[in-house]
Amino acid sequence: MSEKEYKVPEPTLRRLPWYLAYAQLVQKSGELYLSSTQIAANIAVDASKVAKDLSYVNISGRTRVGYDVNELVKVLEEFLGFTKSHKAFLFGVGSLGGALMHDIGLKHFGLEIVAGFDVKYELAGTSINRIPIHHVDSFEELQKKTGVNIGILTVPIDKAQEVAEMMIAGGIQAIWNFTPFRIRVPENIVVQNTSIYAHLAVMFNRLNELNQSK
Amino acid sequence: MSEKEYKVPEPTLRRLPWYLAYAQLVQKSGELYLSSTQIAANIAVDASKVAKDLSYVNISGRTRVGYDVNELVKVLEEFLGFTKSHKAFLFGVGSLGGALMHDIGLKHFGLEIVAGFDVKYELAGTSINRIPIHHVDSFEELQKKTGVNIGILTVPIDKAQEVAEMMIAGGIQAIWNFTPFRIRVPENIVVQNTSIYAHLAVMFNRLNELNQSK
Repeated sequence: MSEKEYKVPEPTLRRLPWYLAYAQLVQKSGELYLSSTQIAANIAVDASKVAKDLSYVNISGRTRVGYDVNELVKVLEEFLGFTKSHKAFLFGVGSLGGALMHDIGLKHFGLEIVAGFDVKYELAGTSINRIPIHHVDSFEELQKKTGVNIGILTVPIDKAQEVAEMMIAGGIQAIWNFTPFRIRVPENIVVQNTSIYAHLAVMFNRLNELNQSK
Repeated sequence: MSEKEYKVPEPTLRRLPWYLAYAQLVQKSGELYLSSTQIAANIAVDASKVAKDLSYVNISGRTRVGYDVNELVKVLEEFLGFTKSHKAFLFGVGSLGGALMHDIGLKHFGLEIVAGFDVKYELAGTSINRIPIHHVDSFEELQKKTGVNIGILTVPIDKAQEVAEMMIAGGIQAIWNFTPFRIRVPENIVVQNTSIYAHLAVMFNRLNELNQSK
């Protein structure tokens, strides 16, 4: 799952959006050029790391002036997949699932949730933020019609494995797993775990230690 | 920011919620005991790592039978801070901010958003999910009244640094940063970065490589 050989390392892919965010800020301020040293200094990442990360992206800077800001923003957005529209299905229209359907920010970053699925019959036929919700029984048919291959998993933990298997059987190739449950999937399936509640645990602990050390 | 000396390592804190989720599943199935080997096998983490991680938590297993499942769930929930109610303010009631205010899941994991703040005057006096929204000018006063020390940052990237500084000046000690912008903060401030859009970039890239290798 995590140890596959990929061309671009995950830490690089996670840092590139930071550089993009900073480049967008510089772009807004009207500056035309941006160096990797400047990026590094402003977001507290080692300059050599910034340069190495950017070497995966097809852009070259000019000696002494750095990268063309507009080009850097454009190339990074494209490289990260934010300019393409990736269609996704969402499974489990509970509180978190509904919240994600409300977030139009995802669309700006290239992810368009085109339908939600739930086991609750009373949800079928309703919609959130103009995204239709269907009973999960319609998933396979809709997948065949649309070819959607990204699935967002926001079901309760005791359903996570079962629903993941159903998603894969129905043609989903990439699962964005928001549950804290570690799903098991075949090798050819991409899983991205985003457990926001695990981040909460880290924050609570650090805050606790901070206040105890006073 | 990340290199401080903490009692519990961050990777451990990130894995413990996985064990909790699995233990909850086992608890639901009616099993009474759970061993670290069993946890390890089911969530694809090394057994010695599971045992090491659990050594930070105040629980001891019995030889051959393992941990008491009910106790494990209870102790983990407490250790991770999910049983306490931590009050938080949210800054930037845009799409993502509003989505987080909709997510009642946060409450189950110990975080209660008690107010949202925004610069838009037309939002002041409204509410989302019964959480009141105030103009950001009222923040300092409300912080003094309530003592809330956790702030969720969901403003646009070009406001992230400025708002973070205002939060800190007003008494916020821990910032849950959902922007892709790397904010700079004093040493005694806890920052938890959760850039869900960066996770999207990783998923898009992996899916792309997967389909190119076919």
